[in-house]
Amino acid sequence: MSGQWGRNIRLSIFGESHGDAVGIIIDGLPPGVIVDKQYIHNQMQRRAPGKNKLVTSRKERDNFEILSGVFNDFTTGTPICAVIKNNNSKSIDYDDIKNLMRPGHADYTGYMRYSGYNDYRGGGHFSGRLTAPLVFAGAICKQILERRKKITIGSHIKSISNIIDSNFEVLDTDEELLIKLSKSFLPVINNKKREKMEECIEKAREDKDSVGGVIETAVLNLQAGIGSPYFESLESNLAHIFFSIPGVKGVEFGEGFNIAKLKGSQANDEFYIKDNNIRTYTNNCGGIQGGISNGMPIIFRVAIKPTSSIGKIQNTIDINKEENTVIEIDGRHDPCIVPRAVPVIDAVTSIVITDLLIDKEGRTWMS
Amino acid sequence: MSGQWGRNIRLSIFGESHGDAVGIIIDGLPPGVIVDKQYIHNQMQRRAPGKNKLVTSRKERDNFEILSGVFNDFTTGTPICAVIKNNNSKSIDYDDIKNLMRPGHADYTGYMRYSGYNDYRGGGHFSGRLTAPLVFAGAICKQILERRKKITIGSHIKSISNIIDSNFEVLDTDEELLIKLSKSFLPVINNKKREKMEECIEKAREDKDSVGGVIETAVLNLQAGIGSPYFESLESNLAHIFFSIPGVKGVEFGEGFNIAKLKGSQANDEFYIKDNNIRTYTNNCGGIQGGISNGMPIIFRVAIKPTSSIGKIQNTIDINKEENTVIEIDGRHDPCIVPRAVPVIDAVTSIVITDLLIDKEGRTWMS
Amino acid sequence: MSGQWGRNIRLSIFGESHGDAVGIIIDGLPPGVIVDKQYIHNQMQRRAPGKNKLVTSRKERDNFEILSGVFNDFTTGTPICAVIKNNNSKSIDYDDIKNLMRPGHADYTGYMRYSGYNDYRGGGHFSGRLTAPLVFAGAICKQILERRKKITIGSHIKSISNIIDSNFEVLDTDEELLIKLSKSFLPVINNKKREKMEECIEKAREDKDSVGGVIETAVLNLQAGIGSPYFESLESNLAHIFFSIPGVKGVEFGEGFNIAKLKGSQANDEFYIKDNNIRTYTNNCGGIQGGISNGMPIIFRVAIKPTSSIGKIQNTIDINKEENTVIEIDGRHDPCIVPRAVPVIDAVTSIVITDLLIDKEGRTWMS
Amino acid sequence: MSGQWGRNIRLSIFGESHGDAVGIIIDGLPPGVIVDKQYIHNQMQRRAPGKNKLVTSRKERDNFEILSGVFNDFTTGTPICAVIKNNNSKSIDYDDIKNLMRPGHADYTGYMRYSGYNDYRGGGHFSGRLTAPLVFAGAICKQILERRKKITIGSHIKSISNIIDSNFEVLDTDEELLIKLSKSFLPVINNKKREKMEECIEKAREDKDSVGGVIETAVLNLQAGIGSPYFESLESNLAHIFFSIPGVKGVEFGEGFNIAKLKGSQANDEFYIKDNNIRTYTNNCGGIQGGISNGMPIIFRVAIKPTSSIGKIQNTIDINKEENTVIEIDGRHDPCIVPRAVPVIDAVTSIVITDLLIDKEGRTWMS
Repeated sequence: MSGQWGRNIRLSIFGESHGDAVGIIIDGLPPGVIVDKQYIHNQMQRRAPGKNKLVTSRKERDNFEILSGVFNDFTTGTPICAVIKNNNSKSIDYDDIKNLMRPGHADYTGYMRYSGYNDYRGGGHFSGRLTAPLVFAGAICKQILERRKKITIGSHIKSISNIIDSNFEVLDTDEELLIKLSKSFLPVINNKKREKMEECIEKAREDKDSVGGVIETAVLNLQAGIGSPYFESLESNLAHIFFSIPGVKGVEFGEGFNIAKLKGSQANDEFYIKDNNIRTYTNNCGGIQGGISNGMPIIFRVAIKPTSSIGKIQNTIDINKEENTVIEIDGRHDPCIVPRAVPVIDAVTSIVITDLLIDKEGRTWMS
Repeated sequence: MSGQWGRNIRLSIFGESHGDAVGIIIDGLPPGVIVDKQYIHNQMQRRAPGKNKLVTSRKERDNFEILSGVFNDFTTGTPICAVIKNNNSKSIDYDDIKNLMRPGHADYTGYMRYSGYNDYRGGGHFSGRLTAPLVFAGAICKQILERRKKITIGSHIKSISNIIDSNFEVLDTDEELLIKLSKSFLPVINNKKREKMEECIEKAREDKDSVGGVIETAVLNLQAGIGSPYFESLESNLAHIFFSIPGVKGVEFGEGFNIAKLKGSQANDEFYIKDNNIRTYTNNCGGIQGGISNGMPIIFRVAIKPTSSIGKIQNTIDINKEENTVIEIDGRHDPCIVPRAVPVIDAVTSIVITDLLIDKEGRTWMS
Repeated sequence: MSGQWGRNIRLSIFGESHGDAVGIIIDGLPPGVIVDKQYIHNQMQRRAPGKNKLVTSRKERDNFEILSGVFNDFTTGTPICAVIKNNNSKSIDYDDIKNLMRPGHADYTGYMRYSGYNDYRGGGHFSGRLTAPLVFAGAICKQILERRKKITIGSHIKSISNIIDSNFEVLDTDEELLIKLSKSFLPVINNKKREKMEECIEKAREDKDSVGGVIETAVLNLQAGIGSPYFESLESNLAHIFFSIPGVKGVEFGEGFNIAKLKGSQANDEFYIKDNNIRTYTNNCGGIQGGISNGMPIIFRVAIKPTSSIGKIQNTIDINKEENTVIEIDGRHDPCIVPRAVPVIDAVTSIVITDLLIDKEGRTWMS
Repeated sequence: MSGQWGRNIRLSIFGESHGDAVGIIIDGLPPGVIVDKQYIHNQMQRRAPGKNKLVTSRKERDNFEILSGVFNDFTTGTPICAVIKNNNSKSIDYDDIKNLMRPGHADYTGYMRYSGYNDYRGGGHFSGRLTAPLVFAGAICKQILERRKKITIGSHIKSISNIIDSNFEVLDTDEELLIKLSKSFLPVINNKKREKMEECIEKAREDKDSVGGVIETAVLNLQAGIGSPYFESLESNLAHIFFSIPGVKGVEFGEGFNIAKLKGSQANDEFYIKDNNIRTYTNNCGGIQGGISNGMPIIFRVAIKPTSSIGKIQNTIDINKEENTVIEIDGRHDPCIVPRAVPVIDAVTSIVITDLLIDKEGRTWMS
């Protein structure tokens, strides 16, 4: 039951890397929501592979086909199914390598979880391709949030390896900047750092190695009072879905791990009111207190590990022969998955925010 | 719907700081599980307040009463309800201060979320007291894991403020050490560091201030193949419930945020087999790949902010008068919540692991 | 996981007949709903035992205690927990009879389901006492529906044994009649039939036997467009919760089983519009088409079996000795459970309607 | 959120009558289950239209395409997606008739529920075609139940209009008969009655009218102890999904509505033991007590209304003009939907039984 998420917006994903298609059913959207297919396409292209030298050369156009739930460009209110065909999965002979457990991948854990029945070709269901349907769903939610609530969601690459970008201004995050970042394939605030990151990724490719990074995201104009304490906190819901994205190993809100080093008198965000706006002097909590938004920008960071697929020879085991061996992974890999993960983070953030807004306000505002 | 969690083990919590009681219903445990009340009591005493000078002087014995679901010391298989009475909630006059939004607390966000109808006394439903029922539920699950699966779960305080304890040995975490830590109120590996942490907490109390910290946890002997990809990943489920604990602002697995600085060739945990055991040479992934356990120790860290209640004067607003003002919080506060959070982390980890084991193996192994 | 129900309003029930208490947690109600305790009390007294000779002499006052979620007579928006103490459970020696499986009861199936660990005293968790918390929850929902939506829910006893009451007028059900029925312990439209039913129940008591019956319910003023197709249909949701009430063996909507005998030209409810109201000439579908309300009265019937506990000697088995034997059940039984089931049906209907209204309209209308 | 069902086996359906396809995602099946496509095809052909004169002439081959979750003919343990293309949806001009609310159909309630955004062509999402994916999912579960548990599920048409078939023998239902019925398009025990039913349906077609009926189902060899009290009772789960099938208006178990006329001494099923088998002398409860199976045959009946689409002129409204009018529905209708509903009932019964078996026994027995 790994493929289902949500309470108010319910997602159900399916697919394998080398199967016919990946896809999603979205249930819980109200009728009458305009579905801008070009907008969805643009979001999906941010994630799609094969666009430049920084990413895998696997060429998937990632065109989606809507099978249900949209009629005359509006949601019907009944389940939306979207399918993304797999066009460019290479038919290499997997029999030779299926027993070699690729380090860092889910080959071994998938084998153990599914008693060897999992589709091992290209990682099967564990493939990052399953995030394409999430971007589809997120794009619909993102449209709604922008149109109906003026909510802006944007991310930059906070770091690649040891190269660190500037920070967001957490008290008054620049909305124009967020929008600009949303259109960039390598969204970095500081241009110099962007160039260095590009070099770093290119170097990793040349070395048959890979690099990871951290994505920092801001959500602007989310009203105070969204979220809930305990099991439906904003942090719980966001972290749950972030950790569902392959490669994510850390999530923090506001000052995050750094807040543990502060004193209470430093960490507490003191309130003030000015021109009828309630604000805080600092934003160490990342706009969330008691699991609920406080009206300040929501700020969080997600750590993404270096791509597991690398061209270097690595030690591993043959699961069938039960013996030690080595593996040399040949193929079209992303030397760095971080740029393609950015739109996925934006997408799932949009989904979570929409879901929690429904908790408080129902669905009538959406169409 | 903030009070419900789980799929196979379903929790439903309730209560307010100054109400009659807090409590929980646990649904989904099979019949025939021995319920050792002394064991539960011991776990709950680790969390209970008023035990020494490092924590709040609010004296709650945190005795639990089981209203249903346990018969002749065995689970019946039907819902277990446990109630923990509030004995020592001070009846101060909240009318004076109810409109003053305490910085760092959920007073303001709770007010906005619940349109001013929330019980504001002592934080109401947002109180950390709601973690007592979680420790109750976790203690039952922890017993089961220990008895039936030889799984050991233990934590140490990785840091308080800037004082940092030694690390767990992530390849072969010492089981005896974990058990020993589980019995300590201030579970720190390095004795020198423990003393410094005590001083640091004591100093914070004297300064009418507070400090935060990081908890590091290890799960030993969890078999490979537990968890699922995507929405039911080990990381998603653990992070979801960790971020439901008041004060948590960051969660990371294995090398966590640090893994983003490594190269793939450094980050990947290479496999080897020895004496029929499949292991990895490193454990950067924290024992989890593709959301599923790989048989190595599960390792994660949780960042906890400094206690929001401090005695210093702070700026804030009067929500009723809509004006700026100051607040001086008088009361019995924990200068550091981290020690009392340790058994909560252990408890919810036990619950998640039990829930995911049921996914794979059903419930028959539990009794 | 038998104790949890709902999506928008989440219920979690617990308790055993001879335990300390039965109770419920209700999650999902918005803040600011007035909780009229006298109203709840009145509904619960309709279900409570010991009131007259037609029902069991077990005297339970069924007083409820609200442990959380209500503050100054308004809902807080956080989980409501209510507990109903068991005061009058007789401490007979169950050791003698615990192995004798009472015919019609869940003794045997409970034994098999829970491997003999279930609390066998007085039926344990299977007891009809678990419907008391449902009446509590339903009373809150019923208040909301009446106050905010002018929805009236009422039932009459359509039959006891072979004695049949008049029908509801399904096109224009009399609202005053429904309200009057709601205040009667034996709600029957035709007075003559009521007397006969009383005699019939009294006769059953004298014979140490029991009788069953059918309850017919009407929901007035539910707007068109509530419910959903397929798994969230009005019929699916109502039937699900009706069949959760002990003793229910049949559920039908509108003409129900009789509609299977009609032709399409007879069964179809033709539409007409008059004074801007869209109505149907007949109401064979019971106000529900495609799982969704059509604005006409919602009409359904629920069949309830005769009380399983009877004083007559019956054949049964001793589950321990694995041999045939007889049982003579001594005790305080209802010769007919139907009258006490009426407020339970009204209650759960209120809960379902509230839950489905939230799907369409959110929660803001409720307070 | 009408398209999702289940806890252990999770279904998510989608599609519209005149869209590209209908389909389903099934999550929760374990790895290693053999998927016999011919078996699935056979079940789907029982439901498929266009096979003979008794049903609609819409010719849909109802071929399914499995997009994920099955690899080398075994389940992988990850989500299964199956899609059934719509080939034969006639492209009539719906603009003329879209505002005419067909009596008995969900045109009006769908319009109100979805604010006019629903796909009105051929009933859209409300179409009975959505039961095709349920038969797909049920066929997989049915295979598992037969192979691993020797459970047999079979149904006969208990009545069409006023023509009534013989009853099942509820104490010892004939397994061979059930299997034979499962292969018949018009499964009736009594041959004479089958002929009369055929004539009755044929007559309805000639009259441009339709007829309904009752389906009676038996589940054999389900062990005692499956199901749960209250919200997860066998009756609740079965009735929930039956009432999700278009056209179902009544559900009863065992003696059902008739049990309300019996005395307790007649209704109670007395136990006896013979050759180590615990059985009951009667089976009035339909094999279910306290929501749990007792080892006797599970027996229930489902009432299905006459097809709403009839050729006769009917009164209705124009929803756009808000005026009274008439409608004459032209098209390819089933004069009786009952025969095609039989495999749907068998299918969803298989799904529910599988889901509840997992509750008790996990998933390891399935592969």
